[in-house]
Amino acid sequence: MSYVNESAVAGSVLAARSVDFPPRVTIIDEGEPARAIYQIVSGNVMISKLLPDGRRQIFELLGPGGIFGVTPNGHHDSVAESLTEVRLTAFDKIPAENASNFNSFIAELLKIQICALHEHAVLLGRKSAVERVASYIMELIETPSNQARINQDLVTIRVIMTRSEIADYLGLTLETVSRAFSHLKRSGIISYERHDGIMQVHIKRLRPLTGTY
Amino acid sequence: MSYVNESAVAGSVLAARSVDFPPRVTIIDEGEPARAIYQIVSGNVMISKLLPDGRRQIFELLGPGGIFGVTPNGHHDSVAESLTEVRLTAFDKIPAENASNFNSFIAELLKIQICALHEHAVLLGRKSAVERVASYIMELIETPSNQARINQDLVTIRVIMTRSEIADYLGLTLETVSRAFSHLKRSGIISYERHDGIMQVHIKRLRPLTGTY
Repeated sequence: MSYVNESAVAGSVLAARSVDFPPRVTIIDEGEPARAIYQIVSGNVMISKLLPDGRRQIFELLGPGGIFGVTPNGHHDSVAESLTEVRLTAFDKIPAENASNFNSFIAELLKIQICALHEHAVLLGRKSAVERVASYIMELIETPSNQARINQDLVTIRVIMTRSEIADYLGLTLETVSRAFSHLKRSGIISYERHDGIMQVHIKRLRPLTGTY
Repeated sequence: MSYVNESAVAGSVLAARSVDFPPRVTIIDEGEPARAIYQIVSGNVMISKLLPDGRRQIFELLGPGGIFGVTPNGHHDSVAESLTEVRLTAFDKIPAENASNFNSFIAELLKIQICALHEHAVLLGRKSAVERVASYIMELIETPSNQARINQDLVTIRVIMTRSEIADYLGLTLETVSRAFSHLKRSGIISYERHDGIMQVHIKRLRPLTGTY
């Protein structure tokens, strides 16, 4: 953990520190006292909740710019875990929440995340297994850094999440996720070797299978 | 629609108007230009999205204090429909979003709604049909106005939503929702007549079936 100077946010100057985490560690735990709000500088973080019997639902995959650790009360409502190496900016909760410019900044990011949660509710509540997996692959492709490639026919991506994590994100069993990937592979829409997560995707053939277009 | 004087929000004074709607009308439509942000004064509003083939997912049930119409861009991402007679306060979007006190006020409400969306994702992705229906009934009971009754054994509530709307909220088919209600009725945990929506609930027997406790 390294401390840096102050960070300018939405016009106000707030004490912030830079924090690094290796892949697949718990950054915040459900029920833990909320002391900081985090914004991702680089890397990916997944947000989830557990039921008492251990069932897990992942509901947010966040990349650079995404925030987490925002809660209406003093405790975190969910778990945040690093998927890759991540660099975060941590803002101490109390001074941050008393800065009105910071709240404007947070409100804008929360609006974006609420839209993503709405989309994800449609996926979880109404899409078939193949539609969910197709939507997940499109979500990996449609990141801001991929804008230039979105109109290509064939795109190569890297799937970082395990099949089991994908199942917990899509509200499916591991077996159903594996079957949906195999179905898309047999249909020639995606191609991959299992060991490295590298996947070739025929975007124009995949998109109509998401249920959204 | 009646216009009232200005409304004080979080210390700032913003032009606001009071708007009334009858039950089951569309207040905002998906894709519509976003001109106002709404806060519920009385009544209930449901928020949903449609897939192009007509499948619908309802993901928020809002009561007094809840806000909707908040979007990161110029268009609404979802549909808002009145469930009951509703009275709303409408804030014009542009002056509201330029008032930092209003953004602090919005940020606090968005944090509460994000926690509810997280809970709902767990329900949609990981709960069984009976757990979803039990969670839905507990959600109707656990409203702020019901705090005094929450420790009673037997509580009477009124279910306003149709079985079909409940199915769209819980990510189930109509038949599965009806079967889960029948199962809970046969088990003596809830009792109801079909025509009026009035339901008696044995809270202590229902709560363990939600999967959450």
